[in-house]
Amino acid sequence: MAYIDLPENLPGIYGPLAFRPEIAEGMRGFTHALMRGTSSLSVAERELIAAYVSRLNGCFFCYQSHASTARYLFGADAGVVDAVIADLGSAPVDERMRALLGIAATVQRDARDVTREDADAARSAGADDVAIHDTVLVAAAFCMFNRYVDGLGTDAPSDPAVYAASAAERAAGGYRPR
Amino acid sequence: MAYIDLPENLPGIYGPLAFRPEIAEGMRGFTHALMRGTSSLSVAERELIAAYVSRLNGCFFCYQSHASTARYLFGADAGVVDAVIADLGSAPVDERMRALLGIAATVQRDARDVTREDADAARSAGADDVAIHDTVLVAAAFCMFNRYVDGLGTDAPSDPAVYAASAAERAAGGYRPR
Repeated sequence: MAYIDLPENLPGIYGPLAFRPEIAEGMRGFTHALMRGTSSLSVAERELIAAYVSRLNGCFFCYQSHASTARYLFGADAGVVDAVIADLGSAPVDERMRALLGIAATVQRDARDVTREDADAARSAGADDVAIHDTVLVAAAFCMFNRYVDGLGTDAPSDPAVYAASAAERAAGGYRPR
Repeated sequence: MAYIDLPENLPGIYGPLAFRPEIAEGMRGFTHALMRGTSSLSVAERELIAAYVSRLNGCFFCYQSHASTARYLFGADAGVVDAVIADLGSAPVDERMRALLGIAATVQRDARDVTREDADAARSAGADDVAIHDTVLVAAAFCMFNRYVDGLGTDAPSDPAVYAASAAERAAGGYRPR
């Protein structure tokens, strides 16, 4: 049970969002633009960054939600998600994505440690400035969402199948305001 | 100079926001609702939490921006801002605000460490559930903004007077979409 009195039967972030609908509407609009708007990162890539950062932050609800969404979007290549979580260095992603995920991990730990050389390496591997920008902001945003979910002690279903069951809906519908 | 090619002469977060206007509009809407909407935290209290978390994250631009805004809003009590930054334990804030700022610091470090006892202690000191919710989300949101600003290597004016000069505008106008 969460640390404050939230609307019932809403797991993870959905309880706090229902508790503060005026704030939730703005948050949804921002999240939808970031995660589903035009970008040089694919939607699958953005969901992979979200899952990776959520795992690094140890946020079970966000990790399960976004890993299942990323697996759905990667389709036949769904195994890439668990491979990145297990070991970024050896995961079967291209060098552009490996460099961007490395930047995301640094943003999660301490964004002041990201260097110009990190950005240059990502560019050399094929990333454009929008991809670098969006990687930093997706990683930063999940440092917010993860803290929001865990700082209020929200409940999360323990069974990964629950998250997998709603992955297609998240993949297609995104996070637009209600 | 930032690590990506941003519009010129826009310090801190303003360069990235101008680089990605579709995302910026959503972010501004969310930020304005959180920082200026109805809450049981005053606007000054929210700006103080923003300044405190930004300082803990070592984000110079965000710290200077929100500390100057909080000082402006606290008026004759402006000294409370620097007192909190120097030592929360001895700062001249009431026990409600001391408990909430303690929660904000835990959210900044690792939100999984916030406990039900932390929330209960804040309630015993007079905080309601909206205040606890908004404290967690303001702290979490600045873990995003700070990373966004520093992860892209944005420039920031070094002179605190520059931030103080625009504090009244931020205090009154907030962060609404352009």
